[in-house]
Amino acid sequence: MLGQIINQTREKAPLIHNITSYVVANDCANITLACGAYPIMAEDLNEVKEVTSIAAALVINTGILTEGKLSAMLVAGKKANVLAHPVILDPVGAGVSKLRTYAILRLIKELSVQVIRGNSSEIKKLYEIYSMNSGTLRIETGDNPTIVGTLRTEADINPVKGVDVADMDIITKNNLDFFIMAAKELAGYTGAIIVMTGAIDIITDGTSVRLVHNGNAMLKLVTGSGCMLSSVVGAYCGANPKGCMEACVAAVGAMGLCGEYAYEKILHKQEGSASFRIYLIDFMSQLDGDRLMQGIRLEER
Amino acid sequence: MLGQIINQTREKAPLIHNITSYVVANDCANITLACGAYPIMAEDLNEVKEVTSIAAALVINTGILTEGKLSAMLVAGKKANVLAHPVILDPVGAGVSKLRTYAILRLIKELSVQVIRGNSSEIKKLYEIYSMNSGTLRIETGDNPTIVGTLRTEADINPVKGVDVADMDIITKNNLDFFIMAAKELAGYTGAIIVMTGAIDIITDGTSVRLVHNGNAMLKLVTGSGCMLSSVVGAYCGANPKGCMEACVAAVGAMGLCGEYAYEKILHKQEGSASFRIYLIDFMSQLDGDRLMQGIRLEER
Amino acid sequence: MLGQIINQTREKAPLIHNITSYVVANDCANITLACGAYPIMAEDLNEVKEVTSIAAALVINTGILTEGKLSAMLVAGKKANVLAHPVILDPVGAGVSKLRTYAILRLIKELSVQVIRGNSSEIKKLYEIYSMNSGTLRIETGDNPTIVGTLRTEADINPVKGVDVADMDIITKNNLDFFIMAAKELAGYTGAIIVMTGAIDIITDGTSVRLVHNGNAMLKLVTGSGCMLSSVVGAYCGANPKGCMEACVAAVGAMGLCGEYAYEKILHKQEGSASFRIYLIDFMSQLDGDRLMQGIRLEER
Repeated sequence: MLGQIINQTREKAPLIHNITSYVVANDCANITLACGAYPIMAEDLNEVKEVTSIAAALVINTGILTEGKLSAMLVAGKKANVLAHPVILDPVGAGVSKLRTYAILRLIKELSVQVIRGNSSEIKKLYEIYSMNSGTLRIETGDNPTIVGTLRTEADINPVKGVDVADMDIITKNNLDFFIMAAKELAGYTGAIIVMTGAIDIITDGTSVRLVHNGNAMLKLVTGSGCMLSSVVGAYCGANPKGCMEACVAAVGAMGLCGEYAYEKILHKQEGSASFRIYLIDFMSQLDGDRLMQGIRLEER
Repeated sequence: MLGQIINQTREKAPLIHNITSYVVANDCANITLACGAYPIMAEDLNEVKEVTSIAAALVINTGILTEGKLSAMLVAGKKANVLAHPVILDPVGAGVSKLRTYAILRLIKELSVQVIRGNSSEIKKLYEIYSMNSGTLRIETGDNPTIVGTLRTEADINPVKGVDVADMDIITKNNLDFFIMAAKELAGYTGAIIVMTGAIDIITDGTSVRLVHNGNAMLKLVTGSGCMLSSVVGAYCGANPKGCMEACVAAVGAMGLCGEYAYEKILHKQEGSASFRIYLIDFMSQLDGDRLMQGIRLEER
Repeated sequence: MLGQIINQTREKAPLIHNITSYVVANDCANITLACGAYPIMAEDLNEVKEVTSIAAALVINTGILTEGKLSAMLVAGKKANVLAHPVILDPVGAGVSKLRTYAILRLIKELSVQVIRGNSSEIKKLYEIYSMNSGTLRIETGDNPTIVGTLRTEADINPVKGVDVADMDIITKNNLDFFIMAAKELAGYTGAIIVMTGAIDIITDGTSVRLVHNGNAMLKLVTGSGCMLSSVVGAYCGANPKGCMEACVAAVGAMGLCGEYAYEKILHKQEGSASFRIYLIDFMSQLDGDRLMQGIRLEER
């Protein structure tokens, strides 16, 4: 089943519309091709509707967000919703600034988002905002969008480590239950499948919970490894729009496995973080369903 | 002759102004350096004239086009025309949206473009637009540029595969004559040398036709491999502005040959698409005229 | 002492705010991670203050500068100054256009810049502008910023080689004294530590002068190798804000040493410029204080 998702993506070769940051755009495009899908990047307000229309899924990533890009994401997202294309949101930098946090809340509110894929700090931050403002979260979406009155400030004060995971947010066996709860709750608040990545990866639609125990710590030394995973999620969901939960699990397993292969290779060759990144994409271009099924370490909760 | 172009580029080390997309900008800059030329990227309306003035050629690439970037391309292109610098256009995404298609038509109309380098879908799309609207194609270039009245809609309906080649547009021995005809006609309509890349590469100025049989299918798994070729065309034309046809043939041969070397290497080392991309640029940095002449498989029509 | 800076950066893992060009952003982020620091890129006027506030240092790079980005740099820089975070300026393209040159002069004038890291052409150009207009340099900073009246034109006429080093500006033993003088004078004019990189690297605060004799000519074949160094300077200064001079020397030595290692490796494996870039970042991710102290070739003047 999971393996089939990888093979189907290569067969269907879906076109995936990515609106992402320039830090990671090249890697996201290359890993999309490595999955067997085709990337297209477009962000001008005057073409995003047309581009999304010919694509099979939309990936929106708030890295280096600007106001202009946010507008394009909203327009593209609404079109994708009308066409029932999966929309994948990567909330890069949730909590680092009002601009990003509010933009992410607006995207979740105004669009029907199928998957939110973030690291444990980002997902926890979103969970905190929703839970602290439960029932009263209201975002004004006029010219000068603000979250009115109700956004409790504690959520803003919690430390964030830029776009990376804060030390206190590293997922361990001890705090795993908390993070599972947070992901499930966030799924409930938003209606999206939550993919929270870390030392243990958590995928949940609010009801069923899957844990993936693959991956390697070197992934944190490659910028945009999470963004790349979001693009893989987009590719797999684009090829399997009716089975996004399975597609997310397959994507997380695939990325984790590629991280393990890449780590073995650099260990053997005594190489560093840049070679690791190359091998990561290499293995994604070589992966098939059988290898995924042999390597994935999946746990159901 | 062709080999000399490569060697001359290393000797002259021309400065090449690129206005390109952020997905491919790093690779385009690195392959320009690998050719022996120097890249400079600049796109602010207030500096593009000055930057183009100190450069030897201008490469404009419509990937992730925005209105602002289009204006910069027009200003830079007009300055390059005045200075008789070669202008190379990479019509990324021709046909994916009105914004891109119209922008490309405006660039061709308002500038004197020496080379158009695109994949077979992009070049075919442009050929269709010109041939279906032959004699009547009129583009309003006011504040709100539109192609008035005369753009026949069939050209818009033909399927495009995002920024990559649609299956129906893969060049084979069976449809080769059609694609040669299309490229020659487009050269006639636009006055530019057409470089159409695919399984067989076609280079034509509307009169003479050269085919290059180098390359490898892995090139399609690297984002921006076509964009990189356009930058190589820019570097070679910048060093040989009087011999752009030869420069285009040399660039296509060089890129194809590097693709073959890179494929041999990843096959031997059992590596994937990201290593292929690294070796592609590696070989470009090592290539000289002799190796090109030994490896190029050229056919005159 | 120098070695400790590298180790401290890994221990403290500071967050570094980079406002840089899209050509080099991915490499800058990856080399920041390779140093043990965390990169964050943000450039929207509405979030740069907040982002800079949670960071430990700010790196601003004028590659592909736009008016919008300049505004963000000024706002972020002022906030960093208030918080006493080190500000590192990479004056990419000083002299290629009025936009860039004036922007760089404004950044130096309006901000307290701790380090200016440029190649020998850029630093020489800035030295010329300051020395030729000594005492009278005045920059209007209204809506339409200009350098009024006093900018002597000879400085504008001197040839620049785009964003790379012009042949006449290559540092050799013969012209070394001139470049040391220029760097010292520029440090005096600006109050910043000057890091001028070339075949011999010069680091000076206007009083003491350190030369670093590491590095390899292949660094010039990798786009953004200088920009990456500026990000390393940012990481080391962020971890050692009281010892920026030492941090600059350590960064220059580290980058030079990584260039030497990478060159040995491609020589042995007969690889080219793209592999060199990968190994450069690889070695940065593996470097520690002991290896730096064993390899650095430092000279005090």
